[in-house]
Amino acid sequence: MTDQNPHTPILDTVAGPADLRRLSDRDLSALAGELRSELISVVSETGGHLGSSLGVVELTVALHAVFNTPMDKLIWDVGHQCYPHKILTGRRDRIRTLRQKDGLSGFTKRSESASDPFGAAHSSTSISAALGFAVGRDMGRPAGDAIAVIGDGALSAGLAYEALNNAGAQGRRLFVILNDNEMSIAPPVGAMAAYLGRLGADRPRARLRLMAEDFESVMPPPMREGARRARQLVTGMAGTGNIFEELGFDYVGPVDGHDMGQLLQVMRATRARATGPVLIHCCTVKGKGYAPAETSADRYHGVSKFDVATGQQAKKAGGPPSYTSVFGKALAEEAARDPDIVALTAAMPSGTGVDIMAKRFPARVFDVGIAEQHGVTFAAAMAASGLKPFCAIYSTFLQRGFDQVVHDVAIQGLPVRFAIDRAGLVGADGVTHAGAYDIAYLGCLPGFTVMAAADEAELVHMVATAAAHDSGPIAFRYPRGAGTGAALPERGTVLEIGRGRVVQEGEDLAILSFGAHLYEVQAAASLLAEEGITPTIADARFAKPLDLDLIMELARTHRALVTVEQGAEGGFGSQVMHALARNGAFDRGLAIRNVCLPDRFIDQAAPAEMYADAKMTAADIAATARTALGQAATIVSLSAVR
Amino acid sequence: MTDQNPHTPILDTVAGPADLRRLSDRDLSALAGELRSELISVVSETGGHLGSSLGVVELTVALHAVFNTPMDKLIWDVGHQCYPHKILTGRRDRIRTLRQKDGLSGFTKRSESASDPFGAAHSSTSISAALGFAVGRDMGRPAGDAIAVIGDGALSAGLAYEALNNAGAQGRRLFVILNDNEMSIAPPVGAMAAYLGRLGADRPRARLRLMAEDFESVMPPPMREGARRARQLVTGMAGTGNIFEELGFDYVGPVDGHDMGQLLQVMRATRARATGPVLIHCCTVKGKGYAPAETSADRYHGVSKFDVATGQQAKKAGGPPSYTSVFGKALAEEAARDPDIVALTAAMPSGTGVDIMAKRFPARVFDVGIAEQHGVTFAAAMAASGLKPFCAIYSTFLQRGFDQVVHDVAIQGLPVRFAIDRAGLVGADGVTHAGAYDIAYLGCLPGFTVMAAADEAELVHMVATAAAHDSGPIAFRYPRGAGTGAALPERGTVLEIGRGRVVQEGEDLAILSFGAHLYEVQAAASLLAEEGITPTIADARFAKPLDLDLIMELARTHRALVTVEQGAEGGFGSQVMHALARNGAFDRGLAIRNVCLPDRFIDQAAPAEMYADAKMTAADIAATARTALGQAATIVSLSAVR
Repeated sequence: MTDQNPHTPILDTVAGPADLRRLSDRDLSALAGELRSELISVVSETGGHLGSSLGVVELTVALHAVFNTPMDKLIWDVGHQCYPHKILTGRRDRIRTLRQKDGLSGFTKRSESASDPFGAAHSSTSISAALGFAVGRDMGRPAGDAIAVIGDGALSAGLAYEALNNAGAQGRRLFVILNDNEMSIAPPVGAMAAYLGRLGADRPRARLRLMAEDFESVMPPPMREGARRARQLVTGMAGTGNIFEELGFDYVGPVDGHDMGQLLQVMRATRARATGPVLIHCCTVKGKGYAPAETSADRYHGVSKFDVATGQQAKKAGGPPSYTSVFGKALAEEAARDPDIVALTAAMPSGTGVDIMAKRFPARVFDVGIAEQHGVTFAAAMAASGLKPFCAIYSTFLQRGFDQVVHDVAIQGLPVRFAIDRAGLVGADGVTHAGAYDIAYLGCLPGFTVMAAADEAELVHMVATAAAHDSGPIAFRYPRGAGTGAALPERGTVLEIGRGRVVQEGEDLAILSFGAHLYEVQAAASLLAEEGITPTIADARFAKPLDLDLIMELARTHRALVTVEQGAEGGFGSQVMHALARNGAFDRGLAIRNVCLPDRFIDQAAPAEMYADAKMTAADIAATARTALGQAATIVSLSAVR
Repeated sequence: MTDQNPHTPILDTVAGPADLRRLSDRDLSALAGELRSELISVVSETGGHLGSSLGVVELTVALHAVFNTPMDKLIWDVGHQCYPHKILTGRRDRIRTLRQKDGLSGFTKRSESASDPFGAAHSSTSISAALGFAVGRDMGRPAGDAIAVIGDGALSAGLAYEALNNAGAQGRRLFVILNDNEMSIAPPVGAMAAYLGRLGADRPRARLRLMAEDFESVMPPPMREGARRARQLVTGMAGTGNIFEELGFDYVGPVDGHDMGQLLQVMRATRARATGPVLIHCCTVKGKGYAPAETSADRYHGVSKFDVATGQQAKKAGGPPSYTSVFGKALAEEAARDPDIVALTAAMPSGTGVDIMAKRFPARVFDVGIAEQHGVTFAAAMAASGLKPFCAIYSTFLQRGFDQVVHDVAIQGLPVRFAIDRAGLVGADGVTHAGAYDIAYLGCLPGFTVMAAADEAELVHMVATAAAHDSGPIAFRYPRGAGTGAALPERGTVLEIGRGRVVQEGEDLAILSFGAHLYEVQAAASLLAEEGITPTIADARFAKPLDLDLIMELARTHRALVTVEQGAEGGFGSQVMHALARNGAFDRGLAIRNVCLPDRFIDQAAPAEMYADAKMTAADIAATARTALGQAATIVSLSAVR
């Protein structure tokens, strides 16, 4: 069915979406086939979100064929299903650079193309965005129709509901395509998912609906309202409609999202007739049209490079286990020892590693769906009831629960344990997934304990520490990817809260590291050693509470101090400087420098490349240290006078 | 009907909720009347959220009479309607200290009483919290039933929907009381509000439902499931149910929330029979039973002290206009000049002052309801379409849109203007409403411009600056309450981005202020002047981008530098120290101190009292300056050696 160089005669004629509108319906069907082959070939080389993109091949073709993109604003929720869209909208020549340094983003991105009117990567923003463009159009800005394409999994997020509620009330012409593939990343959870299942199963009603549509479409305009009422009677939808109709949307569907004829008919009819917000319910199959994907449990949601013929994905080289799996195993072990431990994930059971605990203690692991706000408050109340919840949410997604972290956890001082995976720069997922801000947004909250693991052994200790810490909220962060190869302890040791550790004794210069950049600090120390500089290296372990004794001692006994963290300004370095200022450590001179993420967004690349871009390599740290020492030298001569 | 010392013979016998369960239904009705009189008397003295509390008097009595509180966990959403609850749960003796320093909180609060199992103040957390307690109970923790009481306005928040969705899917026994008073603070908006209106109007179905309930209740247990199915047939609710049923809840209602008999009957029947999640739809009247409240437009949502007989509220003393009204007028003026300006509020049109613009340009002001997440993303897309959105959200509530601020606004560099009211400590609303973190959580985001207004004239300039700033996101913060009396400009001047201003030239000591604490800084300078110390005072205006020239000049020409801000660590002071460190300003000594909110939560009091508690008065600032100068003196003698 496919090879590395698929035969794509129709696709080869498509330079942009306008070209689709010149094709016959039959050619559009054929184009979808070619596009699917091209897509499989591309992702076999680049890796990426294959399953989602395979599921929307026909939908992508139909939308661009029917709507006047890019004047009409097509907004892909999450954006990880946008590869076919990118191929059709002038980016085919760069599509094999997907998710690579200097290549195309794996998500929609405004700076890449006018065909991406609103970038995404976090879920459930598309309906809000479509409404914004609809208002812009209604106020005379250059925009046509606004179309949001949102998956059923993304509908579990409150943001999508807020948007449906507001769009339904505003009543503007607007299209929401519900791409119902019955799974987001993991199989969907929540009552909404079950409800959609019931709607989707109700095929006879769908047929009635479409028949009634046809009937209505042949009526002259003055009679259409009557026809519409008749349709509602026929389909039983007046008054006691479904959720979408109750929220003010016209509901059309379910439609077979892989039947090009049906898609084109429904899109055209809806586009011609809609006066307010319309929801078109499309049923699709994630991984559609590629047998290895369709038969895989996760439908090839995110894949490595693979062999097209067999579907065999490139194996990762051996090497140290990932931080995620180390966390997952350590959590399961703690849970085995303490029956009050529960765990929570927001639609990421395997991504966070809580699936390991779920296999052993299924009733104690809660997957709330894409619903970080609820997840955090729910965990806070479990803590209030006396349970010991671990809330495992990526750094970037915990942003969505920030108010709940402040209001329900921190202010109430409840012992929720936040396991913050994907801290720091994350690689191919790029800027939208960077875990850059958690140290800053948690560090400012009274009563919080904030830790970061320098390696996977430290992570095991921090899981144990969090399990034992029942007097208030505690968080520990760790990066994406493989650990350092540190020997793992049989069982984690409970760390003393607010105590760091000295990793290497030295003089003149102290480097105070927080978290997983310690390996770069050690590499920097090796570079400095070649110049005869032996720094003291300390692992702070805690950004809050700080180890004030350690920090003041470092400041007292060294001429220069460099802080290092995989996070933005406002985090660990800030906490350290506030403490130093409060204690007068700057009064007589202290050459301090902070190595942290710069004040700009870092585009996708391998994590090491991203940290190089961020000027955070060992060489950068060494250079910063040299500068600090050079400036600090002046002080010494002055001090010598005393 | 009421006087300052109402006659409350039954209420006088109630020391705690258990006492209610000894009363007859007739006495419970009478108790509700006494409780209402007491409530009016109390709030006439203290001020506070009267309307919401009046609306739930009967509901409060019925819930405590039927459920086994506090073993059963009763959770009031938002918590501002909890005054009758506090009176009944052992806090009557302190109820006249409500919202005052060292008094009772105006919201539910865990540290106050076992009857407040989960504190609140921000809306829409109660269902998540109830689910957490239900899990705790099911895992053997000491908890009985979990009951959430949530208003219709709070249902517009995605958090509530996420919780309904998850609770419906989990299927645990759980009670959600929908307190449908058809208005939250402002009249409710959104499709959900309209939908609830339709449900509530459907009285015949409600009667049928209750009849069927009665029928069902007399059946022996094995036949009840059949009766239940019969009831569904009678009420037409099987299959095509309402939103709550579609999300997995049993739906009961609507019930007249002021009819004690009906309330007790429904609560008892539901408590006896529920096996899964149940939603009880109660219709109440905000301000019920107090004519001045019932006939007021806002139903006495939040009132000052008032005269019980007339309802006349204490007038504020004359004096300077509030920051909010200055903002509202300045925004309306800018909107009159630029047709692309739009404004957005999340259920706070008058609280934010955007109602002033709405009166002149109703089609350009969007009230999205309690839906900050959607509001921010919607505003981002309006900006992407070429409009100029002002997003007016209190500092504390913007926390709920933080991920959208990062992902949709900052990463895309879209020019959304954030008008951040209630920055800093806010007074009677206390710790949950403190605007403490915005400088930290916005300051860490690349590309953001972050301003704070030193007085209301500065605020007018910042509105103009934000209107003109179309190259990226910009925020300006200002406090609750009256301005300083600064003369207001005819029209705002567009400020140069990233430039501060020197307010007073001095020597030795520089005080660098960000925002509305400038008046305290000036008072501190007066204190210092008495000792012969004349500090330089600068108003930074921008926390981001910083005025690096100004800051380095201050550092170069002064021995000590004190930063001042109405926010937590991680904000302005951190930004300044990072810049100083990067530029080597600490290398040879700089006595820097940061005056900012301390690392603990500050309970409600008058704002000035709260800042005194926070050690941020003029005297505190002067003392900090003295310490810094005292330490810095050493440097001078050393420097003199050179």
